[in-house]
Amino acid sequence: MTYCIAASINEGLILVSDSRTNAGIDNVSTYGKMHPFVTNSDRIIVLMGAGNLATTQAVLEQLHRDKIKNVQTNLNNVECLSEAAAYLGHVSLEKQKQHLNAEGQSAFNPSASFIIAGQIGNEPHGAYMVYAEGNSITSSANTPFLQIGESKYGKPILDRFLKLDTSIDEAARCCLVSMDSTIRSNASVGPPVEMLIYRKDSFSFNEYYCFDDDSDYLLKLRRSWETKLREAVSALPGLTNEYVRTMRVSL
Amino acid sequence: MTYCIAASINEGLILVSDSRTNAGIDNVSTYGKMHPFVTNSDRIIVLMGAGNLATTQAVLEQLHRDKIKNVQTNLNNVECLSEAAAYLGHVSLEKQKQHLNAEGQSAFNPSASFIIAGQIGNEPHGAYMVYAEGNSITSSANTPFLQIGESKYGKPILDRFLKLDTSIDEAARCCLVSMDSTIRSNASVGPPVEMLIYRKDSFSFNEYYCFDDDSDYLLKLRRSWETKLREAVSALPGLTNEYVRTMRVSL
Repeated sequence: MTYCIAASINEGLILVSDSRTNAGIDNVSTYGKMHPFVTNSDRIIVLMGAGNLATTQAVLEQLHRDKIKNVQTNLNNVECLSEAAAYLGHVSLEKQKQHLNAEGQSAFNPSASFIIAGQIGNEPHGAYMVYAEGNSITSSANTPFLQIGESKYGKPILDRFLKLDTSIDEAARCCLVSMDSTIRSNASVGPPVEMLIYRKDSFSFNEYYCFDDDSDYLLKLRRSWETKLREAVSALPGLTNEYVRTMRVSL
Repeated sequence: MTYCIAASINEGLILVSDSRTNAGIDNVSTYGKMHPFVTNSDRIIVLMGAGNLATTQAVLEQLHRDKIKNVQTNLNNVECLSEAAAYLGHVSLEKQKQHLNAEGQSAFNPSASFIIAGQIGNEPHGAYMVYAEGNSITSSANTPFLQIGESKYGKPILDRFLKLDTSIDEAARCCLVSMDSTIRSNASVGPPVEMLIYRKDSFSFNEYYCFDDDSDYLLKLRRSWETKLREAVSALPGLTNEYVRTMRVSL
């Protein structure tokens, strides 16, 4: 399993990904899922992938080769992120289809989904989620984030906290809490946790973080969060008798 | 969809359930999922169900009839909760099988899962989750809660907060937050929210709450929670330069 988040807010982008892959619970490996591309200096493009590892690797390789060979559509000449997402969707579908009908592989699932994020030229920064079917969506003012992989555990904190005008540093910590909650609740999502904070118009990969299993920052984050959660629960309004109802016992 | 929680802690039980059922997104109804039974005074038994509504209703009816007819095994004569869970699992399987092979219903899924909770005689209070297959598990000291239905959104707060020695009033509010997070993130889980706080050895249904959509308590709870979460995110340790790494850009 995998969990990746892309938050696209006014100040820029936050990308967070875990690094655990598994082909069965007894076949667990560590693979980073955040892939920045070497591109022309007018753009910055990062890809995150979830799903079949062979598919995501084949897609990355193809995007890389297309760029080197400067084929008609590649990451160096797409004019905007939506064009990049359409191109990625096309390549992804192609790679999935190559292995879909292999004989004797009825239970085999080559599907993969992606988030492609960054900024191109004078276009605003942004992020797209590319489904296994090749189509894609972007984030919105109401939902300024995208998730792929094991998205449910970490969604409530994003739903409640992330707004377009959230400060990028707070948004980054919020995304880390979302990741930490998911790691705690699902054994198939695990560290190292990678995070890129991209401030709009910076065209820079400088604010990149990678937190290992024993990262003292993640530990501090988790402890602080759990202490504050306890305080938050304690501070919740008490239940008074006015809310008590009579339980209908009829069975 | 459905979301039900049973927390079994030192001071007693907290049961929380939503009330939304749907057979497709355009066929939504309201059905309570928390069902207390009329039993002998030496026991208190509550059932919560998720899954196929026809199955859960058929199971409830059968348990009710068996009790009235005083058949060999019924809720009035089971000696402990694990026996009740085994009996419930047996009835549930029977009801599911009745409709499993109906002709022309290949996509039909009669499966249902249950939580049965309460206290019987001198036995300690407790809760069991009965799977669709009829087998069951109970909670533990490490994981003092059970969930059925849409369990992922609301699990992190329970994972982080609920302990055996959590006070029952705080545990109740924590379960309500877990339910509120799920309602917010999944449209197929909805109010009214029912909650029973059962203090051990009380054999009483007195602390029953039912919160409607427009409940001012739920609104206060949600506001308080979101304010405190914001404070919690603000208080998280800041990211300093010592954690910055060089991003490997190779593709």
